[in-house]
Amino acid sequence: MNSYGKFFRITSFGESHGPAIGVVIDGCPAGLSIDEGFIQSELNRRKPGQSKITTQRKEDDTFKILSGVFEGKSTGAPIAIVIDNNDQRSKDYSHLEKTYRPSHADFTYETKYGHRDYRGGGRSSARETAARVAAGAIAKLFLRKYSILIKAYVSRVGAIESPPYAQLDLTKTEDSIVRCPHPATAEKMIALIDKTRLDRNTIGGMVTCIINNTPVGLGEPVFDKLHAELGKAMLSINAVKGFEYGSGFEGTKLNGSQQNDEFINEDGKIRTKTNYSGGIQGGISNGEDIYFNVAFKPVATIMLDQQSVNANGDEVIVSGKGRHDPCVVPRAVPIVESMAALVLSDFILRARMSRID
Amino acid sequence: MNSYGKFFRITSFGESHGPAIGVVIDGCPAGLSIDEGFIQSELNRRKPGQSKITTQRKEDDTFKILSGVFEGKSTGAPIAIVIDNNDQRSKDYSHLEKTYRPSHADFTYETKYGHRDYRGGGRSSARETAARVAAGAIAKLFLRKYSILIKAYVSRVGAIESPPYAQLDLTKTEDSIVRCPHPATAEKMIALIDKTRLDRNTIGGMVTCIINNTPVGLGEPVFDKLHAELGKAMLSINAVKGFEYGSGFEGTKLNGSQQNDEFINEDGKIRTKTNYSGGIQGGISNGEDIYFNVAFKPVATIMLDQQSVNANGDEVIVSGKGRHDPCVVPRAVPIVESMAALVLSDFILRARMSRID
Amino acid sequence: MNSYGKFFRITSFGESHGPAIGVVIDGCPAGLSIDEGFIQSELNRRKPGQSKITTQRKEDDTFKILSGVFEGKSTGAPIAIVIDNNDQRSKDYSHLEKTYRPSHADFTYETKYGHRDYRGGGRSSARETAARVAAGAIAKLFLRKYSILIKAYVSRVGAIESPPYAQLDLTKTEDSIVRCPHPATAEKMIALIDKTRLDRNTIGGMVTCIINNTPVGLGEPVFDKLHAELGKAMLSINAVKGFEYGSGFEGTKLNGSQQNDEFINEDGKIRTKTNYSGGIQGGISNGEDIYFNVAFKPVATIMLDQQSVNANGDEVIVSGKGRHDPCVVPRAVPIVESMAALVLSDFILRARMSRID
Amino acid sequence: MNSYGKFFRITSFGESHGPAIGVVIDGCPAGLSIDEGFIQSELNRRKPGQSKITTQRKEDDTFKILSGVFEGKSTGAPIAIVIDNNDQRSKDYSHLEKTYRPSHADFTYETKYGHRDYRGGGRSSARETAARVAAGAIAKLFLRKYSILIKAYVSRVGAIESPPYAQLDLTKTEDSIVRCPHPATAEKMIALIDKTRLDRNTIGGMVTCIINNTPVGLGEPVFDKLHAELGKAMLSINAVKGFEYGSGFEGTKLNGSQQNDEFINEDGKIRTKTNYSGGIQGGISNGEDIYFNVAFKPVATIMLDQQSVNANGDEVIVSGKGRHDPCVVPRAVPIVESMAALVLSDFILRARMSRID
Repeated sequence: MNSYGKFFRITSFGESHGPAIGVVIDGCPAGLSIDEGFIQSELNRRKPGQSKITTQRKEDDTFKILSGVFEGKSTGAPIAIVIDNNDQRSKDYSHLEKTYRPSHADFTYETKYGHRDYRGGGRSSARETAARVAAGAIAKLFLRKYSILIKAYVSRVGAIESPPYAQLDLTKTEDSIVRCPHPATAEKMIALIDKTRLDRNTIGGMVTCIINNTPVGLGEPVFDKLHAELGKAMLSINAVKGFEYGSGFEGTKLNGSQQNDEFINEDGKIRTKTNYSGGIQGGISNGEDIYFNVAFKPVATIMLDQQSVNANGDEVIVSGKGRHDPCVVPRAVPIVESMAALVLSDFILRARMSRID
Repeated sequence: MNSYGKFFRITSFGESHGPAIGVVIDGCPAGLSIDEGFIQSELNRRKPGQSKITTQRKEDDTFKILSGVFEGKSTGAPIAIVIDNNDQRSKDYSHLEKTYRPSHADFTYETKYGHRDYRGGGRSSARETAARVAAGAIAKLFLRKYSILIKAYVSRVGAIESPPYAQLDLTKTEDSIVRCPHPATAEKMIALIDKTRLDRNTIGGMVTCIINNTPVGLGEPVFDKLHAELGKAMLSINAVKGFEYGSGFEGTKLNGSQQNDEFINEDGKIRTKTNYSGGIQGGISNGEDIYFNVAFKPVATIMLDQQSVNANGDEVIVSGKGRHDPCVVPRAVPIVESMAALVLSDFILRARMSRID
Repeated sequence: MNSYGKFFRITSFGESHGPAIGVVIDGCPAGLSIDEGFIQSELNRRKPGQSKITTQRKEDDTFKILSGVFEGKSTGAPIAIVIDNNDQRSKDYSHLEKTYRPSHADFTYETKYGHRDYRGGGRSSARETAARVAAGAIAKLFLRKYSILIKAYVSRVGAIESPPYAQLDLTKTEDSIVRCPHPATAEKMIALIDKTRLDRNTIGGMVTCIINNTPVGLGEPVFDKLHAELGKAMLSINAVKGFEYGSGFEGTKLNGSQQNDEFINEDGKIRTKTNYSGGIQGGISNGEDIYFNVAFKPVATIMLDQQSVNANGDEVIVSGKGRHDPCVVPRAVPIVESMAALVLSDFILRARMSRID
Repeated sequence: MNSYGKFFRITSFGESHGPAIGVVIDGCPAGLSIDEGFIQSELNRRKPGQSKITTQRKEDDTFKILSGVFEGKSTGAPIAIVIDNNDQRSKDYSHLEKTYRPSHADFTYETKYGHRDYRGGGRSSARETAARVAAGAIAKLFLRKYSILIKAYVSRVGAIESPPYAQLDLTKTEDSIVRCPHPATAEKMIALIDKTRLDRNTIGGMVTCIINNTPVGLGEPVFDKLHAELGKAMLSINAVKGFEYGSGFEGTKLNGSQQNDEFINEDGKIRTKTNYSGGIQGGISNGEDIYFNVAFKPVATIMLDQQSVNANGDEVIVSGKGRHDPCVVPRAVPIVESMAALVLSDFILRARMSRID
């Protein structure tokens, strides 16, 4: 199914080379001011061709709201947003009809559905994430009512890693085309991506996301724990291979005494002294910073020849064509933020039902 | 909400120290032979008190099926399973009514609900996972019809790590109380857990899970990717801090050319030469082994004194009491398998709808 | 699926002659006082054997709460309720294994599932409605917080019809075993049911339900209109053949000018002068009384011989056995109320999300 | 929420006077030939201005498919369809900003949401049903694979009623602008509607729907009974006040012996001799004709002056303006069929999961 969220719910549609992609946001409460300039600015952070280290596909990614907004405010009706595909160039992709590109979805889609839109990856293309960013922008507008801030940045490209987030000034993320707020690291990352591009190769990386000002009480006790839903949301983004929150994988090497977060009374407010929990305890936000890491594999489309087979099982050489990102993480930053915003908005609404009054 | 799965769907209920915990399995197709002995054997793998390195809480975890099974076979009606809580010892927990234990759910539950069952963690207790294992056993019986096998094991305790799964004989997992199939590593793990227990402390670790014989085509393209749903399922287990599949976090340091999986024709069957993809491409199973890692933090309950505050904000000392696991991963193995079985069963049913005939 | 409701959600389980039936209520907000005496009194209104005009099956229908309630109040965790089946008498039903009783679910279940619990109708038995009444009682407790009152009564047995509800004193419904608050009509209804019973036959009828004090704003604009959900809830009750609200079928013979409800200002409160709309406009409650009719067919089990076929297609005579209701409507009254209470509770929760603040 | 269906699922969006209305169909299996001419012909049956007895609003209701169809066949991806609003005439509606029209949704929407698109009813306009018809057309194409036929017709206008469906030739429904296949009755209906129009009034009526060739086994035992879901689907259509299936309300006056459907063996096929059950037993289709009635109230917009109040509670006169249907039932026929087709398609998919193989 192509919907996400229970109450603040999106339904995404569209293929890479069809007429348009889009999204329906159902459950956005009435009365929210819809700042179209903000939505566009978010789409611009994701769109192709924004810098020398991203794909040169040309899409201006302008959007149109078809419903659910009246006189600048949400009405409670579903908000449908459509983004036309301009630079379709279907001719580029006809050679892919029968070829199974390594580490793409060609083989699995073909086997599952028997009939697929193979142009530019069709439904499996990361172009679908524009729908998420448009919806995520509206979720961010909703979260502003609660002063919740979501800030993601590139924390690693290949093996080049930025210092921990507590040492960073996250207002500087957008100053760099690689979206790492640590200038010295950003420079090295850009150099690595550039070299990778010249090598006709790709490279993976990691995005870290911080959520400030979350109220206590978001998340559900058992299956729909806040971090479980954040994990699913992140893992649903193309190319993601892993998710960890709080002290994550490394923290599991420690003792309980080393990473339990003691509660303290800070001027009448109950807080924790440390935050190994990553702002979530028992699946529910505790008011501290939420932070998590998202691992992105190297883009599967490379400009080097690769061995593969076609639908008949014959051996073929796949030669990279088209316009692709050498490293996906800079453009993934707004996508990670958007999915986080959608998860938080959903839980904000759910939390309205936890008590009888 | 306390349900998981869309079509093969479970609803879990029960608190640690209430009369019983249980689960309703809705969507199990009719005609499945329900092997009660197998369900019990799975519950036994999870139950407390099974070895010297687990908690000594005494629960025999015998279950009763209340519905949905007739003459040994499922009828398509919901299967309700109840497991009584025998060793409730409510008296042990009265001191917790107002205390917020470090890294537990006490504070978040209290703030969210205003009223909570504080006895032994109540709904947040890992005792709830018995319901998952009972349901997971039925899912495993369903998956047998498809020859799908799910095998998890302990791959790390603290910093002690077993060799990669390809080098292991996974039939030996149950030979060791720590559930690591590599005897030399298992020995070290047991020693570490024992030492940790004597130190009145706890330690984290990692469970790795392998799924063999998955048909091609399980998983949905966008939000409900197979690994996204597996990730959510794992992250919903108590104490889990991270999830990665295939080449995971480490693989994101590589180039595309290093970890793309080339397709090959193996005796008429299309396969991949390597399996960095972890058996999933574009969110859909490709028929290769699925494998993933699940990170478990050290249990929050330690037998050492800790600083904290109570509901009034007063400073208190939390003194570990009760009977707890020094390391949760050995008992987590059947839980990981169960959640994986539930995810797979759900996707098996979903896959029946992908084509018109 | 065996769940109903989106946010105030129940999952029902159990067969007529299995060990127990039950229900899990998920989404009941925390802090609600759970009056067990009230739940029992509601179950007593539905239980068999309560008067001479109901089936003589003996069930005391005592219930046990397994979870979700602590110190008398809901905790926000799922509330599981189990009701044991005492008077199972499985021996009575062995002759039904292969016989398809006229107008029962035997044939359709057998064809759909291939394997069914045929004892006493199994899952298709109206015994399942006890689960609904237990859950509905909790919903009624929740609705009391909003002063919402739900009052159903028997408005017709066969062709014997009571005067319209505006002329009735609905506090008298329980004074009569047939649950019609109009004494003269009730007497005739009882006589007709008695005669029908002696004729070894059954008779249909109608239940009318009134909901007072609904706040304005319950119901969703398009698919989940308040009356659409009430209609589904009622039609899901065994033996129901029709649903109408407000002016219903008869009102469709009129002109718009005859049955439009003009708005008036009554002491500063906007109301309607008439109420052909049945308290719902555009799918959303308008604050006036909600009222609707539910049509119940005659019970299919009659004590007369009937022609039928068995699973092999051979002709057989079905001879009514067992203990059955000659008319289902008196016992249906609390079931109708319960389903209405569940629908209203669900929409009360949904309405919390209609605006940004 | 604005979605309908569990597996064959639609999400509708759009307001009467916004830029467009549309629908996303998620869950349509891959490989279905999408006959765009058929979709348009269905939209034409619903569109305004098609005859002298319908509203004269001018909409050509041409549609555009944005996704999910490739080379004429469904791909399994969501199918988004958009229908532009051409004849918006927003100026006509400015007087409605504060007025609460009798028996419209103005008051309830305003109270629920605080902010609404009042132009032409906005989201509450029956224009939304064009989205349902577009989606229903695709559902009908899917049902053709199973030879399932859905045929609705106008069975009553005001008090003018057609003979029972068994006496009618349903292939003639489209021969008459009122969509009643009985010519003599159709003539009377048209005359009544014409007279009503000249009286500046409106009139209600009834649509009857027949479904042939349903396989045995569609529908779920408890809450999601086939007729319960059909009932909800019909009641969700604008202006519907009642639903009954099979022998309906009238049948509840009869004895069990009079309307039980005896099973017979007809050339090796198990059928029922009569069909009071309306093709559904225990909530599940039994292979006989499904038939049901849907009651439509008179359209609330009349061309006569009516008393009402505005948002301030001041008395106002509502003078009918704009272009409206004097009787909605002729245009409702394809809407009823569409909703039935969506319900059936959903249950066709669900039925794939009832057995283990």
